Amino acid sequence: MNAISTLAGIVGPRNCVTEDADIAPYAVDWRGSWHGRPAAVVKPASVDEVAGVVRAAGAAGLAIVPAGGRTGLAGAAVPTANGPPAIVLSLERLNRIRDVDARDFSLVAEAGCVVQTVQQAAAEAGRLFPIQWGAQGTAQIGGMLSTNAGGIRTLRWGNARELVLGLEVVLPDGRVLDDLRRVRKDNSGYALRHMFIGGEGTLGVITAAALRLVPALRRVESAYVAVPSPDAALGLFSRVMASGAEVIGFELCARFCMEMAARHGTGLRLPLPATAPWFVMVEIAAAHPSVPLREMLEEALAAAMEDGEVSDAVIAESEAQRAMIWKIREDYPDCARREGPAIGTDTAVPVSAVPAFVNAAEAELRARWPEGRMAAIGHAGDGNIHLSLHAPEGWTDRPAWLARAAEMEPMVNAIAVSLGGSFSAEHGIGQEKLDELAHYASPVEIATMQAVKRALDPQNIMNPGKIFRL
Amino acid sequence: MNAISTLAGIVGPRNCVTEDADIAPYAVDWRGSWHGRPAAVVKPASVDEVAGVVRAAGAAGLAIVPAGGRTGLAGAAVPTANGPPAIVLSLERLNRIRDVDARDFSLVAEAGCVVQTVQQAAAEAGRLFPIQWGAQGTAQIGGMLSTNAGGIRTLRWGNARELVLGLEVVLPDGRVLDDLRRVRKDNSGYALRHMFIGGEGTLGVITAAALRLVPALRRVESAYVAVPSPDAALGLFSRVMASGAEVIGFELCARFCMEMAARHGTGLRLPLPATAPWFVMVEIAAAHPSVPLREMLEEALAAAMEDGEVSDAVIAESEAQRAMIWKIREDYPDCARREGPAIGTDTAVPVSAVPAFVNAAEAELRARWPEGRMAAIGHAGDGNIHLSLHAPEGWTDRPAWLARAAEMEPMVNAIAVSLGGSFSAEHGIGQEKLDELAHYASPVEIATMQAVKRALDPQNIMNPGKIFRL
Repeated sequence: MNAISTLAGIVGPRNCVTEDADIAPYAVDWRGSWHGRPAAVVKPASVDEVAGVVRAAGAAGLAIVPAGGRTGLAGAAVPTANGPPAIVLSLERLNRIRDVDARDFSLVAEAGCVVQTVQQAAAEAGRLFPIQWGAQGTAQIGGMLSTNAGGIRTLRWGNARELVLGLEVVLPDGRVLDDLRRVRKDNSGYALRHMFIGGEGTLGVITAAALRLVPALRRVESAYVAVPSPDAALGLFSRVMASGAEVIGFELCARFCMEMAARHGTGLRLPLPATAPWFVMVEIAAAHPSVPLREMLEEALAAAMEDGEVSDAVIAESEAQRAMIWKIREDYPDCARREGPAIGTDTAVPVSAVPAFVNAAEAELRARWPEGRMAAIGHAGDGNIHLSLHAPEGWTDRPAWLARAAEMEPMVNAIAVSLGGSFSAEHGIGQEKLDELAHYASPVEIATMQAVKRALDPQNIMNPGKIFRL
Repeated sequence: MNAISTLAGIVGPRNCVTEDADIAPYAVDWRGSWHGRPAAVVKPASVDEVAGVVRAAGAAGLAIVPAGGRTGLAGAAVPTANGPPAIVLSLERLNRIRDVDARDFSLVAEAGCVVQTVQQAAAEAGRLFPIQWGAQGTAQIGGMLSTNAGGIRTLRWGNARELVLGLEVVLPDGRVLDDLRRVRKDNSGYALRHMFIGGEGTLGVITAAALRLVPALRRVESAYVAVPSPDAALGLFSRVMASGAEVIGFELCARFCMEMAARHGTGLRLPLPATAPWFVMVEIAAAHPSVPLREMLEEALAAAMEDGEVSDAVIAESEAQRAMIWKIREDYPDCARREGPAIGTDTAVPVSAVPAFVNAAEAELRARWPEGRMAAIGHAGDGNIHLSLHAPEGWTDRPAWLARAAEMEPMVNAIAVSLGGSFSAEHGIGQEKLDELAHYASPVEIATMQAVKRALDPQNIMNPGKIFRL
């Protein structure tokens, strides 16, 4: 195929692969939900090569699917099964950290840098790159930005979007939009970068980003807390927030989730027996060493216990204990997978609506699938609870459960949206939630997004079939 | 004129004014630099009325210039002098605070709310709406967002953009884009709100916003510090930041600025004599009352003094002393105006480049206009220094000075841009800096902005002639 050899000419034959075995990892998402075979996987190593690949693919009528660490949960980095012929453009070789400036609290990284590598580079400069989530050891900066990744630190430092000072993007026609300024204030026309952040590769290819760093944390205190209800958990959250402590993590976990962690986890030990109905993992921090963090946390927990918001609590006494609390949270998804088939969701509601959301969902799911087991775990501090419905214990037939409880996700989404929330909090739309977006977004919103898409990618060659159909 | 009576029918005759006397305040910007007479000033009081006005104006071929508190410094809220017939759409009657939710740390305000009113509503709920700048008693939320306002707190909480959870916008065709969700995480398609924020009214009319609040501050400490050089000031800044203290203000002021403040200010008293070449106003804060803020500031200043970064310092001993420090800063622009004619700039550079920027500009200005007097004051903590060149003492002929030093602004802008900075940090482009944007932005950037503009406003009726010419 002529177009493929043109591409091979740009990146070198070794970096333009077409054999099934080489392509296989790029032809399926990491949960195995989405399959799509690209005509080739192309791995440019410079911005110029990316631009060349985009131009050549466009000229040949090949769609372009940008891919990073491919840890996304909505299928955005895999070609659509029935879409046009496509290449996967993998950014993995574009992986230099171009600059770290401690004084400016900034770092410039190429799209293929693994998130953890960036975190480490920041730490070496005495700074913190504060985004954090389970897949950070595999996920790459380009994917993090294209999906506007969230995670457990959002309540303190925002989503990935909030950590960007500037971007470098290859547009669908191969031109390079160089907006890598590291200034904190720049009001010179539209903030174009925000279209590519969270744009899931449909408007261009992010090739590098100037990222914002924050002061390194010098004190961290974590607690594992038993609470009687989501309402009590939110009471605790409000209390700690209003105290003025710097809350950097606040996870809410149903007992069933902690039971699964204990049952399937390797080397996990729960700090409290899984007897309370709900648990909270809370973490506060300070960049200055003189902040009396321990006292602040003890004080808040004692007052919460007095008011019935907390039934029991363990404050981590060592870094090992602290690491254990967060290992439970990080290993949870794997433990839940081992429990058996389940259907999951990714909703967010305003923080104050978390109790109403969880209670309503629990009631509706129990009424409809009394045999199911609801798991609820998530970033309560920013309203992002991941609800899922597990098959009864011992159930092994995954497709049968998915079919039986297929209505679970729309049901939960509807509750979230009715409470002013989102059906897609942190995972994005990809190819998974096109129908949901079409259903929940207003026609004006969809039409405006499509107008932007047509303006920037009139040929529709950038990741077609993702976010919406044109 | 038929279109005007249609508009009067939508908002009521009293709210559609056409008399010279009524229109005069809307026909000039507050510095008196830009004049443009609208055919009418239309004051809708609801989103529906805004939509009706936009549709009727569009149908009649009238351009629409949205206006808020009209404190902008780039002429965006005034019709262009030689532009198409236009109406000013003033949001002043759309001024309800729709919702304050302390538990969610959120507030929903209509575009016509005065910024200070929103700050007060947040304070009454025990929260902080952290943006702060001189014009906040007049500026409105819609204008704040359309210009992505900055101010003295940017280094801690970002620009106006970072404080937005959701927007309600009337599009150029009169449709309403309702994206007022208050969720912290929402990855459902493009983040359209970021096109309208900083869009200077060229893409639609912001009618309301869901805003992010933060915990109220319970401790604040301010100091007024004499420093030997911009380099020393930046050393102090790095030191305080790296200490982990929560720095919420860091202003750098040249001696000449403090001399003007002392000479022209009413009730201003400098905490230190204006003998040092440079001064810094630094403020650190904490939301938790147990943070030993005073000790943190004293420690940092003592170490800085030992290292020669600081020659003298006064820590405010009372709220009155603290207020005085910041009153000097807030009253400064008025004092500078009273000194006589001057040409100003609005640049930002990466923080680490502030000393190089100030030194280079000082040398070039002195060489070219030895008779001029350079003033430098600004938000050094985010790299945004406002340099200006004053005429010699006693000079009164403003046009003559502007003509003589006309090259000053481009000269300073070029230095900022050469250091990786911006020629338009916080004031925006409006009708003032079209040529600069055309000069400094890459053709790709301009073309991409114009593509977005054409996609959303194909008729070019929204604030034409601002940001760029089409």
